[in-house]
Amino acid sequence: MPGPRALLGLGLLVAAARAGGRCRDRGWSWGWERERCRCLPRRAMHVPSAGAGPTGLRFLGQAEAQAIDQELFTEYKFSVDQLMELAGLSCATAIAKGYQPTVYYPKPSSKPLFEGLTTQCKKMDIPFLPEFPTEAEFIDELYGLVVDAIFGFSFTGAVREPFGSILSTLERVTVPIASIDIPSGWDVEKGKADGLQPDMLISLTAPKKAAMHFTGRYHFLGGRFVPPALQEKYALNLPAYPGTDCVLQLT
Amino acid sequence: MPGPRALLGLGLLVAAARAGGRCRDRGWSWGWERERCRCLPRRAMHVPSAGAGPTGLRFLGQAEAQAIDQELFTEYKFSVDQLMELAGLSCATAIAKGYQPTVYYPKPSSKPLFEGLTTQCKKMDIPFLPEFPTEAEFIDELYGLVVDAIFGFSFTGAVREPFGSILSTLERVTVPIASIDIPSGWDVEKGKADGLQPDMLISLTAPKKAAMHFTGRYHFLGGRFVPPALQEKYALNLPAYPGTDCVLQLT
Repeated sequence: MPGPRALLGLGLLVAAARAGGRCRDRGWSWGWERERCRCLPRRAMHVPSAGAGPTGLRFLGQAEAQAIDQELFTEYKFSVDQLMELAGLSCATAIAKGYQPTVYYPKPSSKPLFEGLTTQCKKMDIPFLPEFPTEAEFIDELYGLVVDAIFGFSFTGAVREPFGSILSTLERVTVPIASIDIPSGWDVEKGKADGLQPDMLISLTAPKKAAMHFTGRYHFLGGRFVPPALQEKYALNLPAYPGTDCVLQLT
Repeated sequence: MPGPRALLGLGLLVAAARAGGRCRDRGWSWGWERERCRCLPRRAMHVPSAGAGPTGLRFLGQAEAQAIDQELFTEYKFSVDQLMELAGLSCATAIAKGYQPTVYYPKPSSKPLFEGLTTQCKKMDIPFLPEFPTEAEFIDELYGLVVDAIFGFSFTGAVREPFGSILSTLERVTVPIASIDIPSGWDVEKGKADGLQPDMLISLTAPKKAAMHFTGRYHFLGGRFVPPALQEKYALNLPAYPGTDCVLQLT
């Protein structure tokens, strides 16, 4: 059985509206570019990042990622709500300041946590897309960024519908994609050469082996919550987070 | 019945070790002073801060604070775990970077959330004091700061033991005290002129009326999670949080 953090494969997509003229007025910015009103250029710069990051940072195998995850729950007694809140905050911080998200949530869960999170979004007037556009051009036109949070590190096997069609559309969009933990559809250890090629990867807890195959430009780590003893047990060699930051850019 | 966020009166104290000579070596600093290795001077500067903060920021009455709290849970479907995690992060961010906490938790709760939080602290080698020192001098000598998180905004009536003795000791310490939301022992609306006089107050969600009586130097607000519609409904006039910060200093 996959650990509860399989939940971190949220099964959703967040498309951030570029919002045309509003951009300048509303202080729209890509947080990780530290530059206002600048949409990322198309995926042209494929700087290999395997081995990027502080010396010795370990890239986890799937079983190991699951073991650490289990331990956070069983040994350290974190609740799913706690860890998801911190992980979500890390992702939001890494991605942007002042974005205007739209959510596509293809398979809503009836678990109270997920119903609660959905309610929070809706009450905060975050729009939900009832259907995923099949035209990649439509996404390019309306949005400046796609956050891919469909599958997490527990993903194995084949991609089923409706996810297969969604991924196939995403492979054709030209706006940048930010993937959470694992680019959806990738093997957690081996990546997927002909799959999604996100421009940004936000690794949670510690990077998984697939991150060695990440060729985008921005690799962030979010997981300040990992207890030191657990870091040591799994020889994670995590870098120190600066100040009180919850994310760190790996260079 | 008090709302679940009465839980935010955590019933605990965190004493942050000044740690003597380690101070310089370990980058010890008071985050809110933005100055390294500088312990706060004794409570001498009582700059009145009533009316401090951005124009129009409202200070909440007790019933109103409880109503907002209830609404976050019932209408917005936040879980206690979620909000406590965000509130705790705000407090930790406001208080310090690189502190070494020791916890005193006089009445441990058997609720899973609190047992979980206690386990997390213990597994992270955060020491727990089995008894609260009766000598204020002892606290002054060993610690550089006391974080007061005993009572929250649902507090009413008289202070019972062991809290009465603890507060009486705390009133005599000379190291600075940082109170979370409401200085313990204060009336949530009227304050307490002869009670604790913290040097720092971290208001959560929105300041309560007692904050008008706060005479310390550092007033922070932590509550970026408050949904816009709720801010509007209660005319909170909350200031904008800069960048992705989870706290804001009110000046």
